[in-house]
Amino acid sequence: MNPVIENILSRRSIRSFTEEPLKESDLELIVEAARHAPSGMNRQTWQFTVLTNQEIIKELANAIAEVLDREGYCFYKPQALIIPSNKQDSAWGRDDNACALQNIFLSAHSLGIGSVWINQLCGICDNEKIRPILSKIGIPEDHIVYGLAALGYPKAEGKIHERQGVVKFIR
Amino acid sequence: MNPVIENILSRRSIRSFTEEPLKESDLELIVEAARHAPSGMNRQTWQFTVLTNQEIIKELANAIAEVLDREGYCFYKPQALIIPSNKQDSAWGRDDNACALQNIFLSAHSLGIGSVWINQLCGICDNEKIRPILSKIGIPEDHIVYGLAALGYPKAEGKIHERQGVVKFIR
Repeated sequence: MNPVIENILSRRSIRSFTEEPLKESDLELIVEAARHAPSGMNRQTWQFTVLTNQEIIKELANAIAEVLDREGYCFYKPQALIIPSNKQDSAWGRDDNACALQNIFLSAHSLGIGSVWINQLCGICDNEKIRPILSKIGIPEDHIVYGLAALGYPKAEGKIHERQGVVKFIR
Repeated sequence: MNPVIENILSRRSIRSFTEEPLKESDLELIVEAARHAPSGMNRQTWQFTVLTNQEIIKELANAIAEVLDREGYCFYKPQALIIPSNKQDSAWGRDDNACALQNIFLSAHSLGIGSVWINQLCGICDNEKIRPILSKIGIPEDHIVYGLAALGYPKAEGKIHERQGVVKFIR
């Protein structure tokens, strides 16, 4: 099995991170991988915001906790968030961003960095407690966040879930 | 740069394929990679249909041509289609399937196989000319296809598009 497929099959969602900061050079590589995802009609109407500022990560987590009524919400205490955003009216923005996130998860895993898909912002970006924080970190007003990645060095191994779903070959 | 990131950065959408059939063992590996994508809440409500039957590929292409009024539509004449489908009412089905497709594109590329995202079925799965063909190949009635992959050995190199999209670091 080649290293690319080995990396895909061994990736797990990681929900427990050490306090060791991530290397800036690794984050740059990961976001470059994200930018190389396919984009519908090659529109590339996305933006990637790499957030390592712990105060702002906590501020965003606290706002989510309040809006979704989830006390103590903390994104699993990551060292970084990578937040792909896309124009709300982009027909393929949700697909583009999911592909970019998968590139983030896979490239991070190849560098020994754990990551997990965070869903909580999807649907509440325009909430009055959330949008000002997104604006503060430069996410355009007309952008939506479908999913984002929380990253850090893994403190615990991810759970190995049995793979499900029917596979049919039609020859 | 490690081989995983090199593979991500060198992947291109391929829209011209040779007539050489794909190896069954490669298709099995690619679909196994697809099944290892993350899935929202680990629901894994997806199915993967691997279609190498050229007659049915043509039948599906002809139906799309008719429904979308696109004469000569042919999926770029691939050797295989891999069709992820998902329950229409799955909240994260569209994201799950995009991540699975990205695993398909990346694992295919690592095996020297070209691929491209096909959008045409999204929105017309329940059309009276399309659904019977999906049913014939075993895609459940309550499943939707958001995107699918056309695959084959590359006949021509893919275009290198300049990567766009703002990247912001918030430290």
